[in-house]
Amino acid sequence: MSGLRIFVDFAPAPDVLELLREGTHGHHLILARNPATSVLAKPEPDPQFATVDIAFGQPDPVAIAGARRLRFIQVSSSGITRYDNAAFRALMANRQIAVCNSASVYSESCALHALSFILGQARNLPLALRTRTANGTDMWHELRAACVPLEGQTVLIVGYGAIGRRLAELLAAFHMKVIAYRRKPRGDECIPVVTADGLAHALANEADHVVNILPDSAETRHFFDANRFANMKPGAVFYNIGRGTTVVQEALLATLRAGRLKAAWLDVTEPEPLPDSHPLWAEPNCFITPHIAGGHTNEAGTLVRHFLRNLDRFVSGKPLLDRVM
Amino acid sequence: MSGLRIFVDFAPAPDVLELLREGTHGHHLILARNPATSVLAKPEPDPQFATVDIAFGQPDPVAIAGARRLRFIQVSSSGITRYDNAAFRALMANRQIAVCNSASVYSESCALHALSFILGQARNLPLALRTRTANGTDMWHELRAACVPLEGQTVLIVGYGAIGRRLAELLAAFHMKVIAYRRKPRGDECIPVVTADGLAHALANEADHVVNILPDSAETRHFFDANRFANMKPGAVFYNIGRGTTVVQEALLATLRAGRLKAAWLDVTEPEPLPDSHPLWAEPNCFITPHIAGGHTNEAGTLVRHFLRNLDRFVSGKPLLDRVM
Repeated sequence: MSGLRIFVDFAPAPDVLELLREGTHGHHLILARNPATSVLAKPEPDPQFATVDIAFGQPDPVAIAGARRLRFIQVSSSGITRYDNAAFRALMANRQIAVCNSASVYSESCALHALSFILGQARNLPLALRTRTANGTDMWHELRAACVPLEGQTVLIVGYGAIGRRLAELLAAFHMKVIAYRRKPRGDECIPVVTADGLAHALANEADHVVNILPDSAETRHFFDANRFANMKPGAVFYNIGRGTTVVQEALLATLRAGRLKAAWLDVTEPEPLPDSHPLWAEPNCFITPHIAGGHTNEAGTLVRHFLRNLDRFVSGKPLLDRVM
Repeated sequence: MSGLRIFVDFAPAPDVLELLREGTHGHHLILARNPATSVLAKPEPDPQFATVDIAFGQPDPVAIAGARRLRFIQVSSSGITRYDNAAFRALMANRQIAVCNSASVYSESCALHALSFILGQARNLPLALRTRTANGTDMWHELRAACVPLEGQTVLIVGYGAIGRRLAELLAAFHMKVIAYRRKPRGDECIPVVTADGLAHALANEADHVVNILPDSAETRHFFDANRFANMKPGAVFYNIGRGTTVVQEALLATLRAGRLKAAWLDVTEPEPLPDSHPLWAEPNCFITPHIAGGHTNEAGTLVRHFLRNLDRFVSGKPLLDRVM
C-alpha cells in the first residue's frame, strides 16, 4: 500500500521534517497551512484535510467527520479529551477509522517525572536546596528527620495505563507496596488493583503516596473532590501528573492547609498556568511544575518515530501501537 | 556473656534511650557526661571511658588506646576518617578490638538521596519548580527539551560500597548502564567494575552521570582534581554524596563555568556549609543540600537498632555487621 495522503498539523523542525519525509517516502506528506504551536493547541481548519487517508497531530473532530477517505488517526498526545466521547467513538467504529494516541512517547518521561516528585518529597529537596544550615543545628536535625524512608510505604497509582505500569516497574526495587486504582481491571496489571469499591478504603488506610494519572474526561472531572481529600490517610502526599481538571483545587488547598495532606506535587493545574494570585503558589507544601512531565529532549523526533512505526504497521496490516479506538 | 560495660557518647532522646536501655538489659550502660551534639562532632574526654568493654558513638582514638578492656567499637557514622589510618588499624589488630561502622543505617537514605539528585537533574526540577510559564511558549519548549531521557545513559559510581550497591539496585529498572569504580574489586559487585587503569577512559567516554561516594581518607583527598574534571565526558553531571574533601572545588567550579560539566549536585562540600560568599552558591547549575543524604526519620532509632543487632552478635560470637577492622 503506497501513495497514502498523510496530513500533519504541526510544524516540524527541519531535522524532524527530514525524518518524517524519509519515513513516509512513497506516500504524500501534506503539511498544514496554519500549523499548531503545540500538541495541545487546536489547529486551524485546512481545506487539504478533506482528502487525506491518515491524520497525524490533533485533527478537529468536525474536520474528521468530513474527511471521507480517512482511515487512521495518530493523535500526537497521550490525552485524547477532544475525541473521548460516545458520539465520536461511534463515528470511528462506523467509518472503521483506527485512532491511536502517543502514550508510549510520553510514558517514560511521565513515570520519571512522577518518581522525581516522590523522591523530591522523600528527600525534602525544595527546602534542602534552599538551606545553608550547619551540621548539628536544630534546623539541620529537623531537615534530616523530615526525610521519610520510602521503605514499607504504600503508593496508590490512580489511573493505571502505560505511565502507571512504568512507574510501578521503576518502583519495584524500593521495598514499597505499589497498588493501582483502575475502573475496569483487565487482568494484565502487574500490581494489585482496586476498583471503585475499594478506592475509599485504600485512600483512607493504605496510600501514603497518591499518584494521580487520570486523563480528562466527563467521568474523571473533579474526581479528587473535598470528600476524597478529607478522607485520605493523614500525612499522605498527593501527586498529579494527569490532568488539572480531575482535581477540585479548593479542596486540595483546604486539605493542605488543614495539615491532613503533608504535601502536593502538581505538574498539571486548572487553568495552566495558575494565575499569580492563586493561593496554591503561596502554599509552602505545594510544588508545581508547568506541565512538563511528558517533555524530553527531541520529543518531536520520538513522536515522529512512533508515528512511523504505526504507519508501517498500518500499511502491513499489523495491530497498531497505543490504539484507543 | 553479660555485665558488659557499654559507653555511649551521644545524648539519646527519651524514646531512643528507652530502646537502648531495653536492648542492653543485663549490661551496664554508661552515658557520656558531656555528650556530642551530632555524630560528626568530636566528643569531650570522659574518665568513665577507661574501663569500658564496648564503645558506641565516635570515641576518640587516644581514649581508645587507653581503654584496656575495650573489645568492640560501634562507630555511629558511615565515615570512619578519624580511625582510617595504618597506626590505628595496627592497634585494633594487635588488641583484637572489632570496629564496625554504621554504613547500613545510612545506605538506604544515601542511595535515595543520590537518586533524587539524578532525577531532579533529569526532570529539570530546580528550574521547573520556579517557572510559571505557559504551555507553548519558547521557555516551555526549552524546559521540556532540557529533560534528558535517562534511558541509554551511563552512571559511574565512584566508590562502591553499601550505598553504591543499593543505588545500582534502585537503577536496575531504568534501562541505564551502571558501572562502578573500585580500587580493589572483590568480585562480589553486582555491576561491571573499573579499577584505576580504566577510570580515565570511563570518565572521558562513558559516564553521563558521575556519582561520587568516596569516603574521606589520605588516598581520596582531592581525588576529583582539575585533570579529572577537565577530562570528563562533555555534558556529564557530577554528584557528590561522599565527602567534600574528595573534590578540588575550584576545579569543579571552573569545569562548570566552562560548560564542560552540565551540572553538579552536592550534598557535601569543604567546608560545610560553604561560606555565603562562595561562588558555587551563585553557579546556576550547582545544587547543594546541607549534608543530609543519610538523614531519615528516627535516625537515632535506626542507629540504636543497628548497634543492638551487633551487640547480640558480639555476645553470641557471630560475625558483626558493617565490620571495617
